[in-house]
Parts: sequence; C-alpha cells; structure tokens
Amino acid sequence: MTFDFNSYRVKPDTKIKLKDISPVSTVALKKADAAARLEVLKAELDTLQEELYAAGKNSVLVIMQGMDTSGKDGAIRHVFGDVNPQGCRVESFKTPTPEELAHDFLWRVHKVTPPRGMITVFNRSHYEDVLIVRVHDLVPEETWRARYEMINAFESLLAAQGTIILKFFLHISKDEQAERLLAREEDISKAWKLSPSDWRERLLWDGYQKAYEDALEQCSSEHAPWYIVPADKKWVRNLVIAELITSTLHQYRDDWRKTLEAMSETRVAELHAYRAQNATGTSQQKPRK
Amino acid sequence: MTFDFNSYRVKPDTKIKLKDISPVSTVALKKADAAARLEVLKAELDTLQEELYAAGKNSVLVIMQGMDTSGKDGAIRHVFGDVNPQGCRVESFKTPTPEELAHDFLWRVHKVTPPRGMITVFNRSHYEDVLIVRVHDLVPEETWRARYEMINAFESLLAAQGTIILKFFLHISKDEQAERLLAREEDISKAWKLSPSDWRERLLWDGYQKAYEDALEQCSSEHAPWYIVPADKKWVRNLVIAELITSTLHQYRDDWRKTLEAMSETRVAELHAYRAQNATGTSQQKPRK
Repeated sequence: MTFDFNSYRVKPDTKIKLKDISPVSTVALKKADAAARLEVLKAELDTLQEELYAAGKNSVLVIMQGMDTSGKDGAIRHVFGDVNPQGCRVESFKTPTPEELAHDFLWRVHKVTPPRGMITVFNRSHYEDVLIVRVHDLVPEETWRARYEMINAFESLLAAQGTIILKFFLHISKDEQAERLLAREEDISKAWKLSPSDWRERLLWDGYQKAYEDALEQCSSEHAPWYIVPADKKWVRNLVIAELITSTLHQYRDDWRKTLEAMSETRVAELHAYRAQNATGTSQQKPRK
Repeated sequence: MTFDFNSYRVKPDTKIKLKDISPVSTVALKKADAAARLEVLKAELDTLQEELYAAGKNSVLVIMQGMDTSGKDGAIRHVFGDVNPQGCRVESFKTPTPEELAHDFLWRVHKVTPPRGMITVFNRSHYEDVLIVRVHDLVPEETWRARYEMINAFESLLAAQGTIILKFFLHISKDEQAERLLAREEDISKAWKLSPSDWRERLLWDGYQKAYEDALEQCSSEHAPWYIVPADKKWVRNLVIAELITSTLHQYRDDWRKTLEAMSETRVAELHAYRAQNATGTSQQKPRK
C-alpha cells in the first residue's frame, strides 16, 4: 500500500479551515483489510521501539489532541497496544494543580518529556494552554497568543536533542460527537463516566474549532508537524496514526541499525577479551542438554 | 482451575532456603492450555485495571526482582501486555544518579509510586539497596541491615493509603542462567545487549541468593507479601504471576463495584438535572441515522 503521508500533514504557514477538511475521508483500504494492516503496523512499532531504545540516539513524543469523544484514549490503546510497556509511557494532562499553576505553562510537560530510547504519548498537552484556556477566557488574549512562539521554541529544543515529535489532531464532526455522547449514556456499566460537563463543553464547539485552527496554523513545523487525522471512523483514525508513526520512525532506522552494528562489534570484542582472561569462568558453566 | 495462591507466598518470619525451593515446579496445567489461560488472565487484568481506575480507591504496586536473565522484562511484557497503557506504568531502576545518591535510598522510588487508580510495575526496586549494594559491599553491614525495617515502614505507609502491593522474586537455577546467557550470545541481532558484566555478576551467585533469602524473610508482610515464582520455565513464570495478581485484585472487586454503582447513580442524576434545565441543549443535537 502506498500511504499518502503528506496529505495529513499541516504545512507551515497554511490557512486551516477545519470545516473544509473531511472527518471521514478514508484510506486506500477496506475496513476488513485495515484490521490486518493495523496488526502489522503495531508489531512494526514494537520492533522500531526496541531499535530506538537500543540505539539510544532519539526519543519519540506523540501528542494526541482533539475534542471530547474524538478518541484520544482509544487511539492510544489501539496503536500502542503491542509496544513493550517498558518502552512506552502515557502522560495525561488534567486540570493543573496549584503547584503546576505556580509555574510557567510548559513546566509540567517539560518534566515528563521522553528520555532517549523512550516513546512518550501525551494525552492532551501544553496545547490545552492555547485551547481550553482560550475558550474559557482563563488568561487574556495577549497571554495565550504569546504562547504559540513559546511552544515552537520549546518543541525546537526537544527536537534539537533528538526527540522525534508527531502531533495528531483527531478531527471529528459535531454530529459524530453527539452520537458518541448519546451512545455513552446507553452503556449502563460505564455510567460513572457520564458528566453534564461534556454537554456544556459542546456548546463551545465553534470556539474550540477556531482555537484548534490557530494552533495548527501557528505550530506546525518541519521538526514538530501537526497531522489532521480523520476520526469519525475509529478504524481509519487508528490506521492513519499507526501509518504516520511507523513511516516517520522508518526514516531513522538505517541510522539506528548502523549504531547497533557498531555497538554489537564492541560488545562481542569485550566479551571475547573477558573470556580470554577468565577461561575458567565460563568453561565451568557448561549448559545442560 | 484451583490456583494454590498460598504456596508461592512467603509467610512472615519463615526461614527461606532457596536451594530447597524448585525453580521448575509447575502448575496444574499443561503448557498448551497455559497459553489460553494466560490470555484470559490478561484480559481480566485489563478489566480489573479499568475498575481500579474508575473506583479511584486503590493503586497497585508490583515489584519484580530476580537474578540477571530471570525474566523480569519478559514477565512484565507478557503479563501486562493487554492492560491499557494509560493505566499501567513501568519504572526501571538503574545505577542511581548523583542526585539520587544525595538522598535516602527510598527517595527515588517514593516519587514514582502509583497514584490511586494506577498500576505501577517496578523493574528492580528499593530492594536493590539490600541486594547489589550488600553483595558489592557498597555500604557497611549495619547500614543495609537497618534498611529492612525502613522498607517495611515504607511499604506500610503505601498500604495504609490503599496501595495493593505484590512482590515477585523470579526464582531461576544457576544452570538455567548459564543457558540463557549463552543463548543470548547466539542471537547476533541482539549482540548489543551482551556484556562481560553478566558473567562477572554470576560469580557472585551465592552472595545474591543469600541476600535474597534475607530480604524475603525480613520483608514479607500481610500487606506487602513476597511471592517466590518458579522461573526456569517462562510460561510457568508468566502464568503464576498473572494468577497471583488477578486473584489478589479480585478480592477488591466487590468494593470497587459498589463504589461505581453509587457513582453511576450520582452521575446519571446530574445528567438528568442538566437535561431538565437545558432541554434545548440536547434536543438540537439529535443523532443522525
């Protein structure tokens, strides 16, 4: 399958009109084939994570943003389900604590950025500080407006250190959100998840879409691109995200493998040297069989 | 299947002789059936984690300890593979940093204990400070000896806050370790993992076994039990750990479900109240179909 990587990417300095972008646009696969393809990609992502870890040159930061019910949790679960839990961490950002509010808005996210070798997935992120904060008028416009540049500088810092950044906006339609909110109410076993605030936030739909458009326009760079993911269909959403992550990481793979080959040579040589000096150390330890 | 929970548990104040405990003792299942059973348990653990999270009353701390190659990584991967990555976090403890060494030995672990609703798995733990530190003579005996009591007090603190603690010692034989170390050398693609230090540490096998025996004896309490897991066979190891975790969490399930039912009633009532006051808010948003 040829996957049109660039069609989802927000080009720097492009005007974004979310209304003109389909939340259902599909991929070159039927739903039935997509499931098998996703399994392949999940396994590939697991292998890529191991090479990422072993080479120790890069880290990966994945940011998930989107309206309520757009499927951030589901996407994380389905795309990263096969990655070694030791190599992948999810950070969720909720209402800031008093301590967090006593610092700049990037403080709490900076603390939990991925170290080399690791994948960190942000479920919501520092973008909330130009989204919910703006829509609810929590800070003056000049404050949130100044943040786009601060975010760009912060993401450049991470990228310069070898962090591979992918940002996904899960794009759903307003109708689809209504369906999902109502569907939640049907499932009695999950009734503890219900909240009138979901419906209250929905009244601010247009404000959020505008805020997202600005964030996408202002903060999509070469080293930290935004991708707009059609999210009305869950299987399309999962597949597109998995394709985008694996194809991005594939670009680094040759480099990682070269590093690993060099490391392997050194390690084997060290082991042989140790053996030569401590001949008895291992000959005593013949394996059974 | 009846699973003999207690046969793996270290009873408080019992003398432990690891030599007398089989690292291959098996379960009441054939290997072929164990795979299916493990899948059931993994799915169950995922459901349990969701209820743990939703009820928000407890957290879970799983500690994995064992000699090199005993399978800590493999066990984490195979047992927690189906748990929602958002609800489960792995913390690995390596050589302490200068900052960590400038604090007491529990400082770095305390920071990353699980908050309510979460499962945290420690790959190695504060027990290294009565194991490697002792075997390599890094602190005087009176220092590491005093730590058993400090560990017990620390784990009591966590338990009092609702943390469910399970500690697994992955018990392998010295022969099995040799086989695994040699097998590693056969796999050229993983040669970057090799290190003579694996063989060097192996020379201290007896010292480590003694240190483990003391830790198991001194620090197995009602609220933070140690389990000795036969680990020479990977499938037995995974199955035993999965059984022990799920059966432990099952004991809390009724309580969580009661909490969830109460929460659900409140949430549904709130939603109805909101609806009654904002009749137009939802009737405008009829779902499609």
